[in-house]
Amino acid sequence: MKQNLHVVKVGGHLVNDPEALDQVLTAFASLDGAKILVHGGGRHATELAKSLGLTPKMIEGRRITDPAMLDVAVMSYAGLSNKKITAALQRLGVNALGLSGADGNCIQSLKRPVSDIDYGLVGDISHINTSVFSSLIREGLVPVLCAITHDKKGQLLNTNADTIAAKVAIAMNVIFDVRLFYCFEHAGVLHDISNPTDVISSLTEIQMNDLIDNQVIHQGMVPKLHNGFDALKNGVADVIISNVDAMITINAPKTVLK
Amino acid sequence: MKQNLHVVKVGGHLVNDPEALDQVLTAFASLDGAKILVHGGGRHATELAKSLGLTPKMIEGRRITDPAMLDVAVMSYAGLSNKKITAALQRLGVNALGLSGADGNCIQSLKRPVSDIDYGLVGDISHINTSVFSSLIREGLVPVLCAITHDKKGQLLNTNADTIAAKVAIAMNVIFDVRLFYCFEHAGVLHDISNPTDVISSLTEIQMNDLIDNQVIHQGMVPKLHNGFDALKNGVADVIISNVDAMITINAPKTVLK
Repeated sequence: MKQNLHVVKVGGHLVNDPEALDQVLTAFASLDGAKILVHGGGRHATELAKSLGLTPKMIEGRRITDPAMLDVAVMSYAGLSNKKITAALQRLGVNALGLSGADGNCIQSLKRPVSDIDYGLVGDISHINTSVFSSLIREGLVPVLCAITHDKKGQLLNTNADTIAAKVAIAMNVIFDVRLFYCFEHAGVLHDISNPTDVISSLTEIQMNDLIDNQVIHQGMVPKLHNGFDALKNGVADVIISNVDAMITINAPKTVLK
Repeated sequence: MKQNLHVVKVGGHLVNDPEALDQVLTAFASLDGAKILVHGGGRHATELAKSLGLTPKMIEGRRITDPAMLDVAVMSYAGLSNKKITAALQRLGVNALGLSGADGNCIQSLKRPVSDIDYGLVGDISHINTSVFSSLIREGLVPVLCAITHDKKGQLLNTNADTIAAKVAIAMNVIFDVRLFYCFEHAGVLHDISNPTDVISSLTEIQMNDLIDNQVIHQGMVPKLHNGFDALKNGVADVIISNVDAMITINAPKTVLK
């Protein structure tokens, strides 16, 4: 029987709210067994960019990562957020070790090819190094991943944290029984964003597509769900979207992907 | 017989000069056997602070680390410098893994007590976790340390990189035969800063004190030498101060502490 592994993704909104982050990390610390935390970036990078006089470049609503913006992302995600989270987990007795994809070559990516849009220094994941994650976990360490990867040719690349969580979950599922948990500010996928208790308790990909067509599920949630279903289709048995309550309380409301 | 371990400290001046850094990392990549890199911060943090409208606080020529300045140091040292160096070493075939002291609880420190001066969020090293460094090295990984530590109570702390290198060298010398190499922009300790070839080839602590009294050795070099002699007195057999040439060429000019 394979050992259990929790892969928990913490959204950027929570990372930037000290009180909410403390709750999430305390819940994460209470999870038994092997675990990996993946964290988003959130507002801090945008605010840092503004303070430095940089103007975020957007094309068709998508952020473009130019070299100056990549430096900001690396400083914010791999620097401040990653080390604050790691130090906080150490305080809570979790032997956390913060990583970008370059560290131990744990997540390799390819710069996204230029098509209609040139996203700039954005990486699409090409390889998850299960061996280095397994080694660290075997040594009792808890990997804490930020949303920065590298191409093994010396270039750091900005990579979506939801996608990192899904790809890590899929790759590690060969060795462990993985539970992928997307932790964000809501109790799950909502029927109506103005009613935070109206949680869709389970969701298939067909149902998701209907809800997208009917505009029940909106923009921000769509890529997260695609990542979740990608994990599910690739063997990850448990994929859950919810808030901190569902991380520790078995009967808390949540959305389970089926 | 104990295995050899190189502990190489790279000065901040070199970290901030892309061409010089590339030379240093190429030399470091060519070193056989177990190795640890420690890097300073340099100008980037100061420039970042200025860009963010922060005024570096100095008391009696010593920098004071307030919370805003600590965030800048974490972003610059643990974020941008550490990840750029790690990605560059990965390109060179070195399986580098970047670390702050919080990661894997590898370097714990205590906030410096307030005496005449309150240095702010500055940490004096209290414990080097030789077990985590040994585990990483055993897995074929090369630790890359920045000048940030933590107190295990959730607080990150700014810590001198020369001191980190010396304390890591001393602690690891129990397990390995350590060679501590301070790599900076000069060929060694100089008799005369205006004559870069006039290198003091070997130096005892008594000679150092004479040279300090005679003002041959100046401000910036003094703490580095104290750290070097601390390592020497605590069992590290080889302590060298030089530039990149001496890292790879056996007969290159250098200062050897005796």
